[in-house]
Amino acid sequence: MYYFTNDYSEGAHESILQALIQSNLEQEPGYGLDSHTANAVQKVRDAVENQDVDVHLVPGGTQANLTALGAFMRPHEACIALDSGHIATHETGAIEATGHKVITVPSGDGKIRPAQIQEVVDWHKDEHSVKPRLVYISNSTEVGTIYTRNELLDIRQTCDRNNLLLYIDGARIGAAIVVKEAELTLALHCEVADAFTIGATKNGALLGEAIIIRNESLKEDFRYLIKQRGALMAKGRILGIQFEVLFTDDLYFDLARHAKKMADRLTDGLRSKGLTFFVDSPTNQVFPILTKEQIQILEKDFAFYEWEPVGDQVAIRLVTSWATPQESIDAFLASID
Amino acid sequence: MYYFTNDYSEGAHESILQALIQSNLEQEPGYGLDSHTANAVQKVRDAVENQDVDVHLVPGGTQANLTALGAFMRPHEACIALDSGHIATHETGAIEATGHKVITVPSGDGKIRPAQIQEVVDWHKDEHSVKPRLVYISNSTEVGTIYTRNELLDIRQTCDRNNLLLYIDGARIGAAIVVKEAELTLALHCEVADAFTIGATKNGALLGEAIIIRNESLKEDFRYLIKQRGALMAKGRILGIQFEVLFTDDLYFDLARHAKKMADRLTDGLRSKGLTFFVDSPTNQVFPILTKEQIQILEKDFAFYEWEPVGDQVAIRLVTSWATPQESIDAFLASID
Amino acid sequence: MYYFTNDYSEGAHESILQALIQSNLEQEPGYGLDSHTANAVQKVRDAVENQDVDVHLVPGGTQANLTALGAFMRPHEACIALDSGHIATHETGAIEATGHKVITVPSGDGKIRPAQIQEVVDWHKDEHSVKPRLVYISNSTEVGTIYTRNELLDIRQTCDRNNLLLYIDGARIGAAIVVKEAELTLALHCEVADAFTIGATKNGALLGEAIIIRNESLKEDFRYLIKQRGALMAKGRILGIQFEVLFTDDLYFDLARHAKKMADRLTDGLRSKGLTFFVDSPTNQVFPILTKEQIQILEKDFAFYEWEPVGDQVAIRLVTSWATPQESIDAFLASID
Amino acid sequence: MYYFTNDYSEGAHESILQALIQSNLEQEPGYGLDSHTANAVQKVRDAVENQDVDVHLVPGGTQANLTALGAFMRPHEACIALDSGHIATHETGAIEATGHKVITVPSGDGKIRPAQIQEVVDWHKDEHSVKPRLVYISNSTEVGTIYTRNELLDIRQTCDRNNLLLYIDGARIGAAIVVKEAELTLALHCEVADAFTIGATKNGALLGEAIIIRNESLKEDFRYLIKQRGALMAKGRILGIQFEVLFTDDLYFDLARHAKKMADRLTDGLRSKGLTFFVDSPTNQVFPILTKEQIQILEKDFAFYEWEPVGDQVAIRLVTSWATPQESIDAFLASID
Repeated sequence: MYYFTNDYSEGAHESILQALIQSNLEQEPGYGLDSHTANAVQKVRDAVENQDVDVHLVPGGTQANLTALGAFMRPHEACIALDSGHIATHETGAIEATGHKVITVPSGDGKIRPAQIQEVVDWHKDEHSVKPRLVYISNSTEVGTIYTRNELLDIRQTCDRNNLLLYIDGARIGAAIVVKEAELTLALHCEVADAFTIGATKNGALLGEAIIIRNESLKEDFRYLIKQRGALMAKGRILGIQFEVLFTDDLYFDLARHAKKMADRLTDGLRSKGLTFFVDSPTNQVFPILTKEQIQILEKDFAFYEWEPVGDQVAIRLVTSWATPQESIDAFLASID
Repeated sequence: MYYFTNDYSEGAHESILQALIQSNLEQEPGYGLDSHTANAVQKVRDAVENQDVDVHLVPGGTQANLTALGAFMRPHEACIALDSGHIATHETGAIEATGHKVITVPSGDGKIRPAQIQEVVDWHKDEHSVKPRLVYISNSTEVGTIYTRNELLDIRQTCDRNNLLLYIDGARIGAAIVVKEAELTLALHCEVADAFTIGATKNGALLGEAIIIRNESLKEDFRYLIKQRGALMAKGRILGIQFEVLFTDDLYFDLARHAKKMADRLTDGLRSKGLTFFVDSPTNQVFPILTKEQIQILEKDFAFYEWEPVGDQVAIRLVTSWATPQESIDAFLASID
Repeated sequence: MYYFTNDYSEGAHESILQALIQSNLEQEPGYGLDSHTANAVQKVRDAVENQDVDVHLVPGGTQANLTALGAFMRPHEACIALDSGHIATHETGAIEATGHKVITVPSGDGKIRPAQIQEVVDWHKDEHSVKPRLVYISNSTEVGTIYTRNELLDIRQTCDRNNLLLYIDGARIGAAIVVKEAELTLALHCEVADAFTIGATKNGALLGEAIIIRNESLKEDFRYLIKQRGALMAKGRILGIQFEVLFTDDLYFDLARHAKKMADRLTDGLRSKGLTFFVDSPTNQVFPILTKEQIQILEKDFAFYEWEPVGDQVAIRLVTSWATPQESIDAFLASID
Repeated sequence: MYYFTNDYSEGAHESILQALIQSNLEQEPGYGLDSHTANAVQKVRDAVENQDVDVHLVPGGTQANLTALGAFMRPHEACIALDSGHIATHETGAIEATGHKVITVPSGDGKIRPAQIQEVVDWHKDEHSVKPRLVYISNSTEVGTIYTRNELLDIRQTCDRNNLLLYIDGARIGAAIVVKEAELTLALHCEVADAFTIGATKNGALLGEAIIIRNESLKEDFRYLIKQRGALMAKGRILGIQFEVLFTDDLYFDLARHAKKMADRLTDGLRSKGLTFFVDSPTNQVFPILTKEQIQILEKDFAFYEWEPVGDQVAIRLVTSWATPQESIDAFLASID
């Protein structure tokens, strides 16, 4: 049985385990004040090409989102997200639990449009409604699509015109950036977003997300918020070591490139068999449409999610990762006739 | 430089790292639904001698506390804690951030007394005040002392008489249980508490706390709360593997016994030099009172917290752990004349 | 200038002022423990034909909603409402500020359909999403329409099948009940809802909403919640006296009937002039579609909201109340040619 | 039976009722946008001698406190109050329900000392604890005592030195200001506080508190917060009219002076009978110490709270108000032999 269910089915990349072993008996201060975290922060600053950003490492993505959004808004302020956004549907109301409304707009291809943002702003006129304050997007998106450079710049302009913050959930930011045509970089994300995250859990680490805060006004006291939400790890070194490794010698993007290469091979193979796709995803999430009979056969050897019915067929989701072996791709393709 | 500052200065016990490496490329479901977590849960159930408890593994202690207490109380209900309690002073208002008051009573030796609980209950009479609902204690306590078997039973009785839940923060529960005279077991903690935690971060793991829920009425939907608070790890296996190892062949308590042995050696050595102690702690936290000159000399080679001035001397805190080498104890003792 | 902007442009019905004057120097206990509140509660119990309900009087509607919904749900539970629902759009995120998500579904005529509820429930499957727990509806609705007896019973059934609570916002419940064809009573609302409100602010009082709780499991400690949310008035008598008067000799419904009579006169007059309506509202909110020229002329003597553009015309909202004089209706009609 | 239990046992001063009647059928915009509220705001600005303050009228005191404090602090910030403070003990955790810790210090005479504030600040050093941000005091205090001009100025200095906001709960501010020796004015309160309230419920109104915000940085979007917390009254005119009357021809202070005159007469009478007092209160709360026999006799004709046992006697609390008749004072005194 091979799992294409997600990109967090395995442990960590070998280099990370090696680094954990090598540093294991070093004594270090707790709570992210250790030398590895300091080193990781520097490497992340270099990678985003901005030496002034604040970088905080936290265990998980939901934690990153709820800590950041809860910190950045006053009680009457709300964020705008797609109805498919992770904070809108898959975080069990974590943002609302910090007191804030998530205003949702309909999602087609996983990407919010500037006009949708503007419409929300225009509708919220006075104190009888919440005040839109922050736009939440993910890159790559929930359905594997990506915002291009120009799309990000357009959203930034819309935010500027409306005094909105832009927050980018980068749980799969590596998967977006390795798509060459999109002309994306970490530096660009840093430039357009007031704050964003770089996810490691889905790209080779045991756990860990980096929160990068560029907007000066959002930096103050952020460690208080991390602690209050339970995201300040006693052994913060565990996060520091992992980001240190991932941002050495471009490993983070090497891993993302491998996942993409496997996804491309999968997509090409499926397409050459005449299959069509639910979404045209250029990243490590692939959504082929299969017959129920095909699915029944595949399920014997492969695990994956059924995404949505399409007529009397079904779109499934296949996720590749840094750890996906080429043989599994080929075996999957061979199982479809 | 050797750090006696805390019991989380190193990484993890070697067996844990080994298990992480061995299982690394196994594919497993996410979110704690993996086979290692299932195995760990069974081992914890065996260890607490109760097959009916719910066991949840979460990354950290503050997270465990805020998730559990936020789940167990209605909005107008409050918890009772010592003013030295971790939730009262060292979690940045995490409990209040979930909407609940922490009613504090004065701490002497780190242990709450039944009469203090009763007094709080008697004072809170009607809807103009919060309703006390839960008693929070730590064992071992913030100052290294422990509740004995009888003390725990007394507190349970007080809770029963007043319709109060009892929650025990077991971030250092191993340290308490290995003190033989106290007649403590995990099973006893499970019996007296409605819910409690078993901390691994401070006893050999990279990270991880187990939340054990015995009270049937507190079990429902708890995974929703874990997810909402950001404590549901994508790679839950990381927690599962660690608890699996710690609760195999009594490793958890072997590690705690080593820490205690080192603490006892330290205490005996200090006492034989005529030093006195700020608190009479039987666990891995030791609070000797030193002159400022002694501290100045020690600081060259050792790190530790200055706890509190005592006359013109100062009580310091020394913490031993599973990783403390005997040589460091001996070197410390040798540095005091 | 006559205001058709809403049904709270004036003070209170004369009988209420008289009762306030008469009782003014009586000394009474505070916080709703006075004799007038006791009397009012009894009258409300009689009116809803259920002697077992709990009745609480609070100053305002948003307060009633946030206090009740915040009390009835656990942190991971959410309510379902139309996107036009008052809690969804016009309470500045008050429900989210108590930590709960409001799941919205699209509104056509201001009424939620059982199928919409079912779809939400079916979509929310596990702990990665909030748990739908409560359905929020208003009767009469935000656009003046009403749920009939059968529609309420159908929604109740849907709630029962899905373990959902039903909460009815009755800010304008009088307006609904005086529509004879709908076969509505307070008793019916009490029967189908787990809890509901009876609004007085929009039907003749200075201020005040009654929260009626029928479901036994929701009653416990509700006064604590009222106090915590700031809704427990020191001079609770002010609310007691008003409900006492309104529920004596059917005054509450007499006032609602007057408002409806005025609305009907308005509707008939507008229709006889050949005008059409944006919504076919049987209650005290009337939505005629006018030309911009007609609106310009009317605005000289009358105030009202422009609701929504309809082609190159505009739907406006006219609200009648217990205080609307027939002459104002007639003058309004006379201004349209 | 005469009630000395509190200063909100009656309705409203006759002038207020008259004004409500006279304005009753005027049509006005809702939500505090009416002409009476505008007029009241101007009168309050004049009374506090500052034309730049923002003035908001809300129904009750707990609501005022939770709306203001919840608006003024970020999630990790906390307020400092006496353990006898209204927000600490008699508001059912309303502040914590907005997510903020109330740090308490011991109360002797109902007044916090600058050294107590400084000690709290000094203790809260880093992100592991909440960040003290606001000092909450009441004038007059919970036990009827008052902060003098100099005491207020000292607290202000302490706040300035520590970057703390000062918030004064003025539920009984009239009672404080009419004590001539204290040299207090509304203007002084406005000068020293970043924000404060002027209570009307306990000084002649049916209901209503004014929130005065002087600190420019706290003003933004405050109406959003009022709405979100349920404190924005549809018929805001009711509050406007009352403050309009109270701040015309010095009525607010005339009423407070009457209450004080009655309290003084009571105090003098009791003292001349040789009685002693639990607290030396110069305001409308009087705390004589009586024997149980005396209490038994008095209870036949008078209602009051037993405050606290004093040896084998008991301190009771007697509260006078704008409505207290001199005959009731004299009758009370006559009942003690």
